[in-house]
Amino acid sequence: MDNSRTLFEMVGAEAVFTEQPDLRQYLTGLETSFGYILTDKNATVFYTDSRYFEGAKKALAGKDIEVKLYEGSLEKILKGYKEIAIPLAKTYHTDFEKLAGFGIKIVDSGKAFDEIMAVKHGYEIENIRLACNAADNAFVSLLPRIKEGMSENDVAAELEYLMRKNGASGTSFSTIVAFEKNSSVPHHETGSDKLKFGDIVLIDFGCRVNGYCSDCTRTFLFGDDKKHGNFKTAYSHVLKAHMLVKERLVAGDSGKIADGYARDYLKANGLDKFFTHALGHGIGINVHEKPVLSPRSEDILLNNMVFSDEPGVYFAGEFGIRIEDTVMLSGGKVVSLTDSDKNLIIL
Amino acid sequence: MDNSRTLFEMVGAEAVFTEQPDLRQYLTGLETSFGYILTDKNATVFYTDSRYFEGAKKALAGKDIEVKLYEGSLEKILKGYKEIAIPLAKTYHTDFEKLAGFGIKIVDSGKAFDEIMAVKHGYEIENIRLACNAADNAFVSLLPRIKEGMSENDVAAELEYLMRKNGASGTSFSTIVAFEKNSSVPHHETGSDKLKFGDIVLIDFGCRVNGYCSDCTRTFLFGDDKKHGNFKTAYSHVLKAHMLVKERLVAGDSGKIADGYARDYLKANGLDKFFTHALGHGIGINVHEKPVLSPRSEDILLNNMVFSDEPGVYFAGEFGIRIEDTVMLSGGKVVSLTDSDKNLIIL
Repeated sequence: MDNSRTLFEMVGAEAVFTEQPDLRQYLTGLETSFGYILTDKNATVFYTDSRYFEGAKKALAGKDIEVKLYEGSLEKILKGYKEIAIPLAKTYHTDFEKLAGFGIKIVDSGKAFDEIMAVKHGYEIENIRLACNAADNAFVSLLPRIKEGMSENDVAAELEYLMRKNGASGTSFSTIVAFEKNSSVPHHETGSDKLKFGDIVLIDFGCRVNGYCSDCTRTFLFGDDKKHGNFKTAYSHVLKAHMLVKERLVAGDSGKIADGYARDYLKANGLDKFFTHALGHGIGINVHEKPVLSPRSEDILLNNMVFSDEPGVYFAGEFGIRIEDTVMLSGGKVVSLTDSDKNLIIL
Repeated sequence: MDNSRTLFEMVGAEAVFTEQPDLRQYLTGLETSFGYILTDKNATVFYTDSRYFEGAKKALAGKDIEVKLYEGSLEKILKGYKEIAIPLAKTYHTDFEKLAGFGIKIVDSGKAFDEIMAVKHGYEIENIRLACNAADNAFVSLLPRIKEGMSENDVAAELEYLMRKNGASGTSFSTIVAFEKNSSVPHHETGSDKLKFGDIVLIDFGCRVNGYCSDCTRTFLFGDDKKHGNFKTAYSHVLKAHMLVKERLVAGDSGKIADGYARDYLKANGLDKFFTHALGHGIGINVHEKPVLSPRSEDILLNNMVFSDEPGVYFAGEFGIRIEDTVMLSGGKVVSLTDSDKNLIIL
């Protein structure tokens, strides 16, 4: 059964109407900048324009999605329907008003999309795996290229270049490179600070392959100036917290329980107040999607869900540490999809 | 007068409430991932979280924007207001419903944002100029690095690397590199096709500096296999159409008139049916914003507006040509901000 049919049955409305680029990619498997997908009890139709029409027909031949050329009238496509489902949290108010103006009752498809997209198909996991391999290989190639005097921007440029050379079509978010005290800002804006001997280096990076994302963070030392004893101690605790999640998390745990495996350990070592964000988030077509792994999340973690395991501690004005892998649940246990060395690297 | 005050007076509502990242950047001058801006007749307040609070206070000291720590309740911030303006076309329906649920009348600020953001301040033009210089310099450095056998992805990787090295913080959109017949697809997905002697190469690229975008397209030959006579003729027509816009366009022209300078020339040479998109779009914090330069646009082009001049022709399955610069109106006339050589390059 195809994704649009599964979604239709989950939603239970007369028809499901979808126009968001990420959801369109999920339903068609194609990256397009324009199109509408309409599923009712009889069929799924993908309406798109002349730029994508021939390519979509070819790609979707033999699948349960009919491709039609969009003729410029939404009202015509939706004529006759009394009820449609759209993702309300991803639909701009003016677009909602336009649809409501046709006299159609509108219900929400957003929760169904969140739920169905969180559990990945085999082909989705393969694409995420490619994006994770590209990130891993790029990081390993990056390390010997890092030299004193390079700026944060320089390091980001090298890493993004290497991800591209390893098959990525681009980044999955703005690469964060933070030297020394900049690492204490969880979302530091990569800048022009220059690398010095002994600096802490935090790099949060990810890329896209076939429209799917990877997400990874590594923290290491550029030479050992013997002034980073506190850093080394904290690093070993963050790494332990990261690994405890991988060891203990099982399918069926909630996002809250998952988060606790890391947070409780950090608490026992007096570090929980410096762990200022959630443990993780789902990763797929979007670099942030369901499930949420946080102290409040009731999301249940299931096999074939892909998400981040990223504990971190931040000492304002001093330094920060984050260790993140993209992981998945398979056979009830955690499997790491990014997996470059996490023992403390001293370049 | 600051942007939020100007906007408040344009909108004419009791208060203007803004949470979109691009609009937040416009009003505060800061790139942030969380915050709300509220302007009423007395003051403008930027509510943000602990990640941005100290930095924002420092950056906005002495300006007409007060910075406050967000305490977790939108209802509290908006208490007492009977009417607020939000940008309806950029507000998700669920967010609209949340605000409407507070019993506040909601009106639109979107058109005012479009209008005020289209005419750039001096500091905005300087940032766009930096992004244009980074793109120009990267392109010039790229040309000698292009070698037979490189893939489209390889070329994109080199170019993005060079833009970073020239000061960009990233791309302003997914770089398009299209070899030979792939150039006939206006939004070709950069892929693994390998460069051969005699190939047409189309590259559409842009980057960001300090949050502002550039956008540029060049089309050239990788060696002359003497089989591209039609291409050369069409190239000279597209270049002429591009230059006619720069020569004839004056402040006060509509987007429709601007588009006509290129389209009418291409029509006189039998090429208008292959010019399948609009002439251009505004460029600023967003790579697509107001004004629109198209056959139907009534937008009036004014001094200090920044936009693209990008005529193109596409012969399906054969080849395409697009020549694009980021330009602005200054002293009533067009000034080119990207400006690398547009005479046909044969590598």
